[in-house]
Amino acid sequence: MGKKVAVILSGCGVYDGSEIHECSAVLVHLSRAGAEVELYAPNKEQMHVVDHVKGQPTQEKRNVLVESARIARGNIKDLANLKASELDALIIPGGFGVAKNLSTWAVDGKDCTVTQAVEDAIKAFHTAKKPIGLCCISPVLAAKIIPGCELTVGHDSECEKWPYAKTADAMKELGCKHVNKHVDEVHVDAKNKLVTTSAFMCNAPIHEIFDGIGKMVTDVLKLA
Amino acid sequence: MGKKVAVILSGCGVYDGSEIHECSAVLVHLSRAGAEVELYAPNKEQMHVVDHVKGQPTQEKRNVLVESARIARGNIKDLANLKASELDALIIPGGFGVAKNLSTWAVDGKDCTVTQAVEDAIKAFHTAKKPIGLCCISPVLAAKIIPGCELTVGHDSECEKWPYAKTADAMKELGCKHVNKHVDEVHVDAKNKLVTTSAFMCNAPIHEIFDGIGKMVTDVLKLA
Repeated sequence: MGKKVAVILSGCGVYDGSEIHECSAVLVHLSRAGAEVELYAPNKEQMHVVDHVKGQPTQEKRNVLVESARIARGNIKDLANLKASELDALIIPGGFGVAKNLSTWAVDGKDCTVTQAVEDAIKAFHTAKKPIGLCCISPVLAAKIIPGCELTVGHDSECEKWPYAKTADAMKELGCKHVNKHVDEVHVDAKNKLVTTSAFMCNAPIHEIFDGIGKMVTDVLKLA
Repeated sequence: MGKKVAVILSGCGVYDGSEIHECSAVLVHLSRAGAEVELYAPNKEQMHVVDHVKGQPTQEKRNVLVESARIARGNIKDLANLKASELDALIIPGGFGVAKNLSTWAVDGKDCTVTQAVEDAIKAFHTAKKPIGLCCISPVLAAKIIPGCELTVGHDSECEKWPYAKTADAMKELGCKHVNKHVDEVHVDAKNKLVTTSAFMCNAPIHEIFDGIGKMVTDVLKLA
């Protein structure tokens, strides 16, 4: 029997939702490993809607669950219904949706709050010693919720390749240990069963991001 | 130098736009092969917007180029600016957007019209003997525009695994040769430099669709 893995989405599109290619990579690798996947998203309004051509917010209103269903091909559940006791592992792909719809990180940084249902899910898997895989910006959720955990969001020194490196500093200020890793590597916090990889935090070709996420999925399933 | 490949999108989401995972697979495989990718979409209103939880149209209006930019992470051009003379190959992923926004196939079947800019693009690559890769439902575009070509949309006998098999019959009525192929196979029409694969026309695990698209990308690049 394959492991049952919950994947939490945060919309559909890098600038206001889940990063589409990270989600797709997670699903391809889980499928190849024979895992059974359940997709979830919070049933709430998005923080905002971004025109992805202009990179600017519009006046539209969209719902996180309804937009996430585009990635899920309709097969998705309200996050309020997630039961960690019936699942073996949790994965949360990145994208600004994590910092806008699953938390207030985009506005408040390390002083953010995490959406209650997301906090409940992370705490439930962590307490049950079930593994959690996070990529791109989503490790900030663990940095807030699991004190002192070890994480990577790539590198902690800003440059063209690592435009979001300051995220690592904010995690350190929260008391976490940040470990520098290349885009094709993961960091495993064995004590907390946390597997993290940088994905699109790195300015890298999409196949390297795909491969890094593959390693995250493999290590999550090993720990499950 | 890598080959320059144009990819035409038709929105963002299987029921009213491009199938997200097919697009992502195309981009991952092109990236791994070292190809240079240019993404395009028509700057027009979508036929409609579908709530992907309910599977029902809503009252919203969305633009094909703006929604496609979600898959493109903002790096996309108006299809009106595509110049086949500056490119080596063309790929069009599937999704209902092909049958709704790039043509009227969803409404008119084999009597459909193809959006002028899409027809122009396909004719330009075909005339220049540059390869064209099509997956899922997008082979219907070639069936309309390249008389007598050879194609696959998977199998021509409807069953649980092949719910859209009637598409093959419509193509035969247009004078094309349909070739049955598994989801992990492609058909190559060498004379017309057309490479087709069934992708989500098949009710298959997502990693098998990813691999079939990989073969399509490899064969398109071989012909370029």
